[in-house]
Amino acid sequence: MARTRVYMDWNATAPIGDPARLSMLEALQLPGNASSVHAEGRAARTALEKARRQVAALVGADPAHVIFTGSATEAANQVLTPDFRMGRSPLAIGRLYVSAIEHPAVREGGRFPLESVVQIGVTPSGVVDLDVLAAALQAHDASLGMPMVALMLVNNETGVIQPVVEAARLVHEHGGMIVVDAVQAAGRMTVDINELGADFLLLSSHKIAGPKGVGALVTRGEALMPAPLIRGGGQEKGHRSGTENFHGIIGFGAAAEAALEGLSERNAAIAALRRRLEEGMRQVTADVIIHGDAVERIANTCFFSLPGLKSETGQIAFDLEGIAISAGSACSSGKVGQSHVLSAMGFDAETGGLRISLGSTTSEADIDAALAAFEKIARRRPSAGKAA
Amino acid sequence: MARTRVYMDWNATAPIGDPARLSMLEALQLPGNASSVHAEGRAARTALEKARRQVAALVGADPAHVIFTGSATEAANQVLTPDFRMGRSPLAIGRLYVSAIEHPAVREGGRFPLESVVQIGVTPSGVVDLDVLAAALQAHDASLGMPMVALMLVNNETGVIQPVVEAARLVHEHGGMIVVDAVQAAGRMTVDINELGADFLLLSSHKIAGPKGVGALVTRGEALMPAPLIRGGGQEKGHRSGTENFHGIIGFGAAAEAALEGLSERNAAIAALRRRLEEGMRQVTADVIIHGDAVERIANTCFFSLPGLKSETGQIAFDLEGIAISAGSACSSGKVGQSHVLSAMGFDAETGGLRISLGSTTSEADIDAALAAFEKIARRRPSAGKAA
Repeated sequence: MARTRVYMDWNATAPIGDPARLSMLEALQLPGNASSVHAEGRAARTALEKARRQVAALVGADPAHVIFTGSATEAANQVLTPDFRMGRSPLAIGRLYVSAIEHPAVREGGRFPLESVVQIGVTPSGVVDLDVLAAALQAHDASLGMPMVALMLVNNETGVIQPVVEAARLVHEHGGMIVVDAVQAAGRMTVDINELGADFLLLSSHKIAGPKGVGALVTRGEALMPAPLIRGGGQEKGHRSGTENFHGIIGFGAAAEAALEGLSERNAAIAALRRRLEEGMRQVTADVIIHGDAVERIANTCFFSLPGLKSETGQIAFDLEGIAISAGSACSSGKVGQSHVLSAMGFDAETGGLRISLGSTTSEADIDAALAAFEKIARRRPSAGKAA
Repeated sequence: MARTRVYMDWNATAPIGDPARLSMLEALQLPGNASSVHAEGRAARTALEKARRQVAALVGADPAHVIFTGSATEAANQVLTPDFRMGRSPLAIGRLYVSAIEHPAVREGGRFPLESVVQIGVTPSGVVDLDVLAAALQAHDASLGMPMVALMLVNNETGVIQPVVEAARLVHEHGGMIVVDAVQAAGRMTVDINELGADFLLLSSHKIAGPKGVGALVTRGEALMPAPLIRGGGQEKGHRSGTENFHGIIGFGAAAEAALEGLSERNAAIAALRRRLEEGMRQVTADVIIHGDAVERIANTCFFSLPGLKSETGQIAFDLEGIAISAGSACSSGKVGQSHVLSAMGFDAETGGLRISLGSTTSEADIDAALAAFEKIARRRPSAGKAA
């Protein structure tokens, strides 16, 4: 009864790819602390700075503007703070406006007190409502400090691409800054910090087939910077203390370079696989709801609901069929509750969401295996009488 | 002219050992996010929890009391905060008392405002002055909140072992908490959180031949906990959000287990090597000062000064001779200034310190190579006329 497992939870974490793995194997041979001045230290520093250039290239940034962190969550906590500096002078940020569908790492507001975090609603398709954002910025009390907006480029559950360029324009018209969580976008679509108009980007290595435990805060300039979250030895130009995650950063760099190569061909192939998947699901049952399918989505993500099928039940059923998928975001210790993304899109607590997310090694056979499981599960759910 | 390099900067970072490397190679094959509920996620979780038990065993702690972080610096910033909680109730910490020889990660005071951080002086041998600590605790204004003391178990520059047990007793008599930086101690001497009476321990993976980018905050209990530094998805029971550094944690666990095995034999061998080194140095020149040699030191560290030899000059000279050593702690981007540890011990700014730190693969031949370099450098320094 041993069967091959099919991994379709790339938005939770991508299996580590060969470029990252091989570069890490090499890096694991190097001794030396990148802050030491001896030859071993300098060799580590050289390798680390190469990775910085690779990560910068992934998002069109200046390598000098990449700060490596221990996760994108840490990067979020670093930048989401009322305590900014312009050079050495303190600069207050008055309020943080976050879309209601941000990842918890952003939605929790980092170092902002809860009462300073304002949520901006989304449309039923899962796109941030720019009119609501504009009104909020219009009403912003500048005497508290400048406004900061956090908007993800691609939603981690639905895959819906958010109107970051337009949001950035709005924010800048109102004298504010915009932080863009590009965790699910980088390496899956073209991301350019300048074209987006983002002041800060959040990146994660393990979503692009790099190792876990590494992220980055990328800045467009360096005039306005957040007060450090982690103080100490002054690494990363004082912005993030602590010995650098050497092997992790090397792997992140290699993964970033690989993610850029053949991006559009890979994307086209993944888009075709998702089309096969979604068309197949609709053939099985007409009542499947595919969230965000009316708007622009990243190619690899399919977030769906089946009336009568709870998230927990569905996820476990797929797992038993050998298919690893998830009920929204992974995060904390396997808790499965109502998706805050679905709530924000106006669905009631009864609607369970299931996320299938594909990657570079997903095959047509994987899709067909997922469809076979989907068919079984769809037919035996409580309301299966309604199925086509 | 190619010559073998001799790496003697184990206190900056230990070359990664086979146990960590091999376990990481295995872990690099596993897909899955340890927070996902599917089979892949559960396999990752199982591996991660094994590492937690291994790290806990290194310091005699309950595995449930190990919080993995991205570095010991992060762990320091997490616990050094005025913002504690007893269950769900807030609990204020009034002041932080740190020894003057703490690592910058601790001495910077984490999230305490600078004015709440009080430095406690040390003796000329580099041991914290317990009388000064007692007087400070006696004078502590409890209306501000309880006192917190941070004292390292082993100083990173001198290797001097600090009287943590006595300090812990004092702190507890005064109703406070003690945070112990065990970064340079763990895996190099027996460390037991209960025997020490430490409320919190800071650990780093890369000092015990594990990978960089992983640390831990270990707690003796869990009644009093710091407010999270990094908020988000709620990993590590909500104490530290962000996807866990999976491969790094696995490597840390393997390194911790290996560090416990044969600890006393390894220590005896390293102590003999240091004896050979220091006796050799004294034979070369009688005016070498070996810091802390009159008090109890960890076996692997030799921190010395040679009159007339600056730290920068000395470090570069050794590097050119093929010997990697350091001028005190590594940290930020190779800056070399006066050691704050030497200053605290009462030395003037002219006294340069150089640190040779040994590890499990150091050989007698390495010591002899270091001695040959030492002899050359000692003889040609400006004040060499004084040498024996």
